[in-house]
Amino acid sequence: MTAENRQWVLSSRPRGPVTAEHFGWRTQPVPAIDEGEFLVRTLYLSCDPAQRPWTEMDTYIPMLPLGEVMLSGAAGEVMESNHPGFAPGDLVSGVFGWQDYAVSDGGTGIFPVTKIPPGVDLPTALSLFGVTGLTAHIGLLEFGRPEPGDTVVVSGAAGSVGSFVVQIARLKGVRVVAIAGGASKCDWLTTELGADEAIDYKREDVGARLAECAPDGVDVFFDNVGGEILDAVLDRITIGARIVLCGAISGYNDFDHRPAIRNHYRLIIRRATMRGFLVFDHAERFPHAISDLAAWAAEGTIKAEIDVVDGLERAPDALSRLFTGGNRGKQLVKVA
Amino acid sequence: MTAENRQWVLSSRPRGPVTAEHFGWRTQPVPAIDEGEFLVRTLYLSCDPAQRPWTEMDTYIPMLPLGEVMLSGAAGEVMESNHPGFAPGDLVSGVFGWQDYAVSDGGTGIFPVTKIPPGVDLPTALSLFGVTGLTAHIGLLEFGRPEPGDTVVVSGAAGSVGSFVVQIARLKGVRVVAIAGGASKCDWLTTELGADEAIDYKREDVGARLAECAPDGVDVFFDNVGGEILDAVLDRITIGARIVLCGAISGYNDFDHRPAIRNHYRLIIRRATMRGFLVFDHAERFPHAISDLAAWAAEGTIKAEIDVVDGLERAPDALSRLFTGGNRGKQLVKVA
Repeated sequence: MTAENRQWVLSSRPRGPVTAEHFGWRTQPVPAIDEGEFLVRTLYLSCDPAQRPWTEMDTYIPMLPLGEVMLSGAAGEVMESNHPGFAPGDLVSGVFGWQDYAVSDGGTGIFPVTKIPPGVDLPTALSLFGVTGLTAHIGLLEFGRPEPGDTVVVSGAAGSVGSFVVQIARLKGVRVVAIAGGASKCDWLTTELGADEAIDYKREDVGARLAECAPDGVDVFFDNVGGEILDAVLDRITIGARIVLCGAISGYNDFDHRPAIRNHYRLIIRRATMRGFLVFDHAERFPHAISDLAAWAAEGTIKAEIDVVDGLERAPDALSRLFTGGNRGKQLVKVA
Repeated sequence: MTAENRQWVLSSRPRGPVTAEHFGWRTQPVPAIDEGEFLVRTLYLSCDPAQRPWTEMDTYIPMLPLGEVMLSGAAGEVMESNHPGFAPGDLVSGVFGWQDYAVSDGGTGIFPVTKIPPGVDLPTALSLFGVTGLTAHIGLLEFGRPEPGDTVVVSGAAGSVGSFVVQIARLKGVRVVAIAGGASKCDWLTTELGADEAIDYKREDVGARLAECAPDGVDVFFDNVGGEILDAVLDRITIGARIVLCGAISGYNDFDHRPAIRNHYRLIIRRATMRGFLVFDHAERFPHAISDLAAWAAEGTIKAEIDVVDGLERAPDALSRLFTGGNRGKQLVKVA
């Protein structure tokens, strides 16, 4: 156990691809806790596309001030506690940041701290049973509402959320068209995850391929990407289609020049709905989603693809992999 | 009564502002009716923005073929009938087109033919109790769902649908911000129709004015316009906001260069919904909507602003007024 608290702080705003140069490395004393607080030792960090906008703009949380510890989902162990709900030895997940030790009050803001159930390993807690799996389950099933016979399209399909959406859609028996970047990801999506078709947006004309892969149109679109891919799908939606907006990663690295969309009028012609959501708003649905995900994991019909980078010092590099297509499935950083 | 059937047919596709030069004038014999059909003499034509896209692209109906009678909502009188549901003397509304006489089977496609109740004059039947009033009522109340304390923004607010949305929103006791073009329309919206604020998009910065007029954000947006105005409103929506897409007139006259939107990511941050709708899908809600509209008309709390152009020969000019801002309220053409 390190006796110091190593931290990455945001040192400049990345007006382009996010890299290690936007963060400063520093070492602080391990913090003391107050009444109602507990100390968490970080073991794994979660890498999520939303971290990029957090560094540069107000989103559903205020923009991270310069000089503060970089925000990040994480899993860790409670080391000391003055909080009645948490005891030393508890394994927990929450937004603990890029650091060895974090002080928490149990999550009074938008981000909850949750206890990791016994028997669940930390990478699985941060992917299948974490924000990632919950986002996929609730976004697809509550807002996408696929019906038998539907065609579901997923963008960013080889990413953490997308790869679960593909598998959950397949479990619901609908036709699944996955959009991802690169032949190897596309192969993996069809041969390993059960997508009916995969479109390589880097090499193929997405609109033309959608016409082939979704000949009756797109009933549900789970979008992690935005921009040209969203426009191409809008052009193919059916009457009453549901577009679930989870993310818009195509615009995150150059927000001022984020891609516009030109086909929103299709929502009128097709009487369709485009809805943004944030999983933290739907905590009342977590138990049901976890129950489904646990059952599918137990029967082996869903799997969590994990991509681990070793060492807190590599956290910025791990985050940047999300934007270069380096990761497949959930990107984590192993801290200790 | 003319013994001939004068008609405007679509003669070319207007790749820009729609004018009389895109239509051909011809005279045909009054058509004969078959079993199950009836003959309608057109008395008033309804001018609607959607007619413009019908001339150039597939929408929720196929693009109108060249050489066919221009499609148009209308009201008229049944002259002869071989249809069990319609008798000579019945006043009816339906999509009868730019012509003196139309043969109808009662409306088996997307557009219904409805009987006009006794005591309702034809201009009111085509505005308050027609597609226009139904669109405003159902779009705002079923899909916008304004709650007490909400701020509702309406674009194209001085148009036919918009002016009803403003009045219905005011009747629901919410704060109403109307967006229209020109000082006189804005004055009319605040002094006559009860909007709390009006923004003149031709002269004012819509985003800056929204910040003043909707300081707590926009909970419901009823959009007839799209483009820059939609983007400006997206930038101001509250968490859980409902954006109801009724039209996107800013792109109708130059579809290939229709305005893009850049702020759709706001739907994610604000967990908001953007939904297109078409009133014809919601016939089961018509009786309730008509009942509300009739009650408000009887108590004098809603009024139908009507703008009438005289003569079938002026139908193309009347339609073009929708795109130049010439009309206030419902644009009609009096045929006979």
